Amino acid sequence: MSFRSDAEKILKAAIAAAMPDSAVKNALQSIALGSGTVVLIAAGKAAWQMAKAAVDVLGERVARGVVITKYGYAKGALPRLAVYEAGHPVPDENGFRATQAAIDAVQGLTARDAVLFLLSGGGSALFEKPLIPAEELTRLTDELLSSGADIAGINTVRKRFSAVKGGRFALLCRPAKVFTVALSDVLGDAPDRIASGPTVPDPTTAAEARAVFSRYGLTLTPAMEALLDDETPKSLDNAEIQVTGSVRTLCTAAESVCRSLGYDPLILTDRLSCTARDAGVLLGNLAGTWAGRGKRAFLLGGETVVRVTGSGKGGRNQELALAAAEGLAGLNACVFSVGSDGTDGPTDAAGGLVDGTAAERLRQNGVSLSAALQNNDAYHALAAIDGLLFTGPTGTNVNDLSVLLLGE
Amino acid sequence: MSFRSDAEKILKAAIAAAMPDSAVKNALQSIALGSGTVVLIAAGKAAWQMAKAAVDVLGERVARGVVITKYGYAKGALPRLAVYEAGHPVPDENGFRATQAAIDAVQGLTARDAVLFLLSGGGSALFEKPLIPAEELTRLTDELLSSGADIAGINTVRKRFSAVKGGRFALLCRPAKVFTVALSDVLGDAPDRIASGPTVPDPTTAAEARAVFSRYGLTLTPAMEALLDDETPKSLDNAEIQVTGSVRTLCTAAESVCRSLGYDPLILTDRLSCTARDAGVLLGNLAGTWAGRGKRAFLLGGETVVRVTGSGKGGRNQELALAAAEGLAGLNACVFSVGSDGTDGPTDAAGGLVDGTAAERLRQNGVSLSAALQNNDAYHALAAIDGLLFTGPTGTNVNDLSVLLLGE
Repeated sequence: MSFRSDAEKILKAAIAAAMPDSAVKNALQSIALGSGTVVLIAAGKAAWQMAKAAVDVLGERVARGVVITKYGYAKGALPRLAVYEAGHPVPDENGFRATQAAIDAVQGLTARDAVLFLLSGGGSALFEKPLIPAEELTRLTDELLSSGADIAGINTVRKRFSAVKGGRFALLCRPAKVFTVALSDVLGDAPDRIASGPTVPDPTTAAEARAVFSRYGLTLTPAMEALLDDETPKSLDNAEIQVTGSVRTLCTAAESVCRSLGYDPLILTDRLSCTARDAGVLLGNLAGTWAGRGKRAFLLGGETVVRVTGSGKGGRNQELALAAAEGLAGLNACVFSVGSDGTDGPTDAAGGLVDGTAAERLRQNGVSLSAALQNNDAYHALAAIDGLLFTGPTGTNVNDLSVLLLGE
Repeated sequence: MSFRSDAEKILKAAIAAAMPDSAVKNALQSIALGSGTVVLIAAGKAAWQMAKAAVDVLGERVARGVVITKYGYAKGALPRLAVYEAGHPVPDENGFRATQAAIDAVQGLTARDAVLFLLSGGGSALFEKPLIPAEELTRLTDELLSSGADIAGINTVRKRFSAVKGGRFALLCRPAKVFTVALSDVLGDAPDRIASGPTVPDPTTAAEARAVFSRYGLTLTPAMEALLDDETPKSLDNAEIQVTGSVRTLCTAAESVCRSLGYDPLILTDRLSCTARDAGVLLGNLAGTWAGRGKRAFLLGGETVVRVTGSGKGGRNQELALAAAEGLAGLNACVFSVGSDGTDGPTDAAGGLVDGTAAERLRQNGVSLSAALQNNDAYHALAAIDGLLFTGPTGTNVNDLSVLLLGE
């Protein structure tokens, strides 16, 4: 089946592009590091993979650097880089020490030099140098978490007491330029939110931080009071950031493969959030309208939700695909949907695929499409018509990809 | 609010285009009637309006003709046309007489002449000349309806015993050309299904008709037996058909207004059938992805379903719009959805409209968005933020139109 082969090419390339190493390699193509010294700082759960990818590409252009990742996440030594493991999600002394090493590594640079800052999930805990005593930070964190303050409020406060958050790490790199590559798995994430934005101008203010303190009755120690009005940078002329590795990367990579396979592709959304079943029905509706009008692909990235109406086996991607089967019936079209982590729900499949013959083949196999959907039993229904997709665990997790392919 | 004014322009033009008279006028622009005699035959519930529109355009080019509509549906005399009223949904002698008058009107034409055949809903009962005695047709119809045969099977049988169905009226018009304009409110309707296709080649066969008789044990009278093997035309070289007035017309008219208002429009589907709520969420997802990328419009036609989870007041279009509010929050975008008949659910509104400020305005008005959706109470929620759309009854019914507009 040609649709299946196309689908497998598309999903493999998309997942590959969303892996940390590919994301870094792609990002480096558009970064002009200049001819001076390059210092590499990597922080987060994917720090080791990102740093490895960067030194693979840049080789000896990287003069020195620091890699800070979670305990157990370092995979060995990296040339010219100091690799640290530290506490996550609760920051610890090893993290503070490693962050100080990173600060030391970016001292003494000139305006011709560059810092390559590689950020990934967990960076907020792993990349930290508190300006208040650790026990005060711990108590403040506890108070914030039990106060009912939202994440925006929490970050507004914490940035004031950090030597690196809220754009301050970029100040420490001056006069060198800082190029940040941030791997984000959060849809539409604002750069200043990723790890509290060490290299991004801070939109929050001292006044806003004071307001959080008074609204939630937080304990304001003398050490905190001394720091509260120290404003974070509101603009930075030495910092650039690329956010990558999100579901957007998944979609654009899939789009590019679709084009190379002869489909005219369109990314409808990269923040899909409706129910899996209705997303599938809608792709079936689109198929009915677009079938016979040339090779096309409609792509959706995001994460649907499963409305539980039964007790069967499946996952949101399998349910989405199965729900498209009726609309596709008789058409030269296919719908597939996969989780980028390779695991869809509590199953061994990454997702599902149906084409214009799926509804008829289900009938021939004695499977009721409507009953399977009602029972959330997409796994067994798709298994009966060879409609499951398998990738194994992929090592990345940037939501799901759902695609409608229309043949000629 | 400019979005609201744009939305009103779009929906008014779309509904106007889907009115029977507009559909006929548009269709006539691409029909080359030639220079010979033009005979007009109109049958169906909208026959009078369609015939009126045609004589308004063609004037004295129409030499003669017959209009057959339901009792009470004729609005007066039309120049050079005989206007009949007849039985619907059960055919009667007046219908048979009128149909005979139509057959008479198309006799004696030459290859230079043209028949303009205007078909609308109800045409199957109103345009009929049975080849078997009326009482046999009545009994056969009763037997078919109680047999469990599907509509395809019923039509396969009935075409054999009609002088005009299954393409036979086109044969009676020869050597003149027949141009059919069929108004259909059924999504993706096949031309041979509309009023049993008097001017369309019949894909069903005598053998298939015999199979229906034997499968359902229908009474085969000698009169029927004599007709059963008379094959209907499988091709017609003197007939052309345009199907119009469907939800497709609604969408293409809306698309055209969007373009004239500066939006780059795309009709995603004309057969939307998922739940209203999820269609709204999905349009909100699209808004998040496409906002800030220029003036665009995404259009969907069809008919969503409401998943009843509460006891509030609303309709599918209002629910769709309200469900988009969260995704639109803060964006320069709007979603509106209307029923082309002007009545959305058991309310006096035609639909609803939300923009990027709707979610915040709901909060300010003390309306919980999630509670309103859960209670299917879109009417009151939208009423609180001036988000209802009113058109009054429109006189047409070609499903719904849902649009996402993105500002600059």
